[in-house]
Amino acid sequence: MILYEHLNTNDKGNLTIGGLDTVDLAREFGTPAYIIDENVVRKNCRIYKNAAIKYFGEDALPLYASKALCFTEMYKIAAEEGLGIDCVSGGELYTAKKAGFPAERIYFHGNNKTDRDICDAMDMGVGTFVVDNCDELYAVSKEAVKRDTVQNILLRITPGIDPHTHKAIVTGSVDSKFGSAIETGQAMDIVKKAIAAKGVNLIGLHCHIGSQIFDIEPFSDAANIMARFIAQIKEECNYEIDVLNLGGGLGVRYTEYDREIDYEKSIKDIATVVTEYCKNNGIKMPKVILEPGRSLVAAAGITLYTVGGVKEIPGFKNYISVDGGMPDNPRYALYQSTYTALIANRATEARDYRATVAGRCCESGDLIGENMEIQKAQRGDILAVLVTGAYNYSMASNYNRIPRPPVILIKDGKARIAVKRETYEDIVRNDVL
Amino acid sequence: MILYEHLNTNDKGNLTIGGLDTVDLAREFGTPAYIIDENVVRKNCRIYKNAAIKYFGEDALPLYASKALCFTEMYKIAAEEGLGIDCVSGGELYTAKKAGFPAERIYFHGNNKTDRDICDAMDMGVGTFVVDNCDELYAVSKEAVKRDTVQNILLRITPGIDPHTHKAIVTGSVDSKFGSAIETGQAMDIVKKAIAAKGVNLIGLHCHIGSQIFDIEPFSDAANIMARFIAQIKEECNYEIDVLNLGGGLGVRYTEYDREIDYEKSIKDIATVVTEYCKNNGIKMPKVILEPGRSLVAAAGITLYTVGGVKEIPGFKNYISVDGGMPDNPRYALYQSTYTALIANRATEARDYRATVAGRCCESGDLIGENMEIQKAQRGDILAVLVTGAYNYSMASNYNRIPRPPVILIKDGKARIAVKRETYEDIVRNDVL
Repeated sequence: MILYEHLNTNDKGNLTIGGLDTVDLAREFGTPAYIIDENVVRKNCRIYKNAAIKYFGEDALPLYASKALCFTEMYKIAAEEGLGIDCVSGGELYTAKKAGFPAERIYFHGNNKTDRDICDAMDMGVGTFVVDNCDELYAVSKEAVKRDTVQNILLRITPGIDPHTHKAIVTGSVDSKFGSAIETGQAMDIVKKAIAAKGVNLIGLHCHIGSQIFDIEPFSDAANIMARFIAQIKEECNYEIDVLNLGGGLGVRYTEYDREIDYEKSIKDIATVVTEYCKNNGIKMPKVILEPGRSLVAAAGITLYTVGGVKEIPGFKNYISVDGGMPDNPRYALYQSTYTALIANRATEARDYRATVAGRCCESGDLIGENMEIQKAQRGDILAVLVTGAYNYSMASNYNRIPRPPVILIKDGKARIAVKRETYEDIVRNDVL
Repeated sequence: MILYEHLNTNDKGNLTIGGLDTVDLAREFGTPAYIIDENVVRKNCRIYKNAAIKYFGEDALPLYASKALCFTEMYKIAAEEGLGIDCVSGGELYTAKKAGFPAERIYFHGNNKTDRDICDAMDMGVGTFVVDNCDELYAVSKEAVKRDTVQNILLRITPGIDPHTHKAIVTGSVDSKFGSAIETGQAMDIVKKAIAAKGVNLIGLHCHIGSQIFDIEPFSDAANIMARFIAQIKEECNYEIDVLNLGGGLGVRYTEYDREIDYEKSIKDIATVVTEYCKNNGIKMPKVILEPGRSLVAAAGITLYTVGGVKEIPGFKNYISVDGGMPDNPRYALYQSTYTALIANRATEARDYRATVAGRCCESGDLIGENMEIQKAQRGDILAVLVTGAYNYSMASNYNRIPRPPVILIKDGKARIAVKRETYEDIVRNDVL
């Protein structure tokens, strides 16, 4: 087992995922390639679903925060596992529609829905809008009135929590592009406006404190603050909030130096805070929604590359260059994220070599990681980067006009293509000659 | 004039580019949209071309470093202006081929050419490979021998210069994924190997010290070091280097707080160093190649967005959200790059408001800039970000499944589509249902 149960080695000394030899997968599908173990995704969906129902009650619902990894087949998996989904754009809505995802279980998110997005979502019959701000509240209200309908909405609230994570992925503090802060009085203001607005039915509140968080305390604090705010709304507006969406953000283990997280226990701990607050303060227990993204898909995925140049600079560093990089995984360039890498065709050998794994782009910042612990490599080796299921394919670009890799799903010992490899022809498709 | 001569305001108070009203352009082509003034690109090409010939001699050649902004029409413009091009991947080569770019003026770059890339480039008849490392030297040699041909090559050399720029775009220091360092003896080693290798003809050397550099000194230092290395090769190997490619990296003015650069004078200064060294040391003046990318296209481009939510958080910041963001411009997220932004439909008003301009992605780090000087905005306004011609379209992603904007070329008062806007159907095209 390497980091996770679905990652192992076989008697050839090769890395396996879901029982399949990664060197064979690299040969069959080419490199770079994203490989996702579907069984792991489904197992994670069930952990969330079961724990949510067990600790929050029958009507609790986890939504898959689909920006983490989005393609039609992923939406089908989420649908089959009984999850809802969180979509943040017209493109995600369109993909969900293609996948036949039930529209009433779609929550339409984002800090800036365009007028077209609002129309598209209403055309699709999207169940719930998560309204970010006053401008958006009135835009949604106006469109619903025009259609003579009533749209269910949640309001995005910033509870004012600093969850100790990378600045770019903190979202719940007062100073945020998202939502309305309780602290400044703007949250209560938008609640009152939403109650009064035509064409919208305020059913609940949403908060999200950030991403890749390992401590349960900020979640408990946020849950507590939100429950208190629900009580305050009841008192001040005589209005009952039915739904509390507590967002996502539980961390994922990327390397052996990261902590392990027990997701079920985390959900139990958060549930305790909410249920106790409700009991002690005489407010009805709301329907609770959770929004896991990364923690459903990250660990399920790996990326396979072929090694090109290997460079040892005496007195400095060693570099291993691979046939992908920041176009398929920009997370080191964006957040200096850490990963586990190994040579898939010598996976049983000790990772006693140190190298910076570099991508193939004409950019020095195009790295997968610096000074990684890895096996010694040579041109033609298969290099695997682990835990790339989240925010890799979904953030991929065509920088340097490099085609995006395919997404291969592994299930019960079989591999199938879920997203085809881009071709050069795909890349020039929209160029006008 | 706003920052550059091609950016002005008209009597409606609207921002104009190349004489065209940006509010009209936003209406005609939708937002977000990249608008590029072709006349400015061509003017910049001529500045480089003329100065290179004037100061380095008749056979000097600027290459367009096409990773900065790559689509077929850009290659046609570079071809018409008599430039060569620097391609870094099979995708760029394919695009150049589609554009009918003369293959002998293509220089094939990159720290990690795959075996397929090497074959594709030889199939196309690419004039010159810029070979990065020993593994690659032998891969090129092997393929050329197999084809019974001889491939002209340059070797990428790291001169050991620290040009004082962002770490992610420093490329010329010893500790780099690119090239072979003179300091460690690895440069001389690869030169000797290249001279001895079959199927390759070593015609010259390449260096590139980094990007967005405003001081001429690191360029002069690099030129001097490279000229000295040419002399050393002559002495040690009795081998004459014909071509010296000095790379690119001259800075671009993004805001009024940045310095202005006189590109002609910069080229003149670098030429003085090279010619004097050659004269004083009795070596033949090489054919000099320059590789401008950013400085040809950055200033020519702007991005037009529509404003969505506007949020004022008392005691904290103001946020203006636009209908694009890090998917079309990841440079703030990657490098905390600074830009100039303004409200295009009130461009004559003072930029006396302070706001963080945020994108529409579900990510706190999705910003165009923090605390930007701008006009006060409201939903529906057109917001222009200036100097986005380089490393915006070329680095764009579909994060959050947001379609990439079109590229509109402006020439002599007319606008035409050079790259069509992506559709939702484009985004799901490779999803297997």
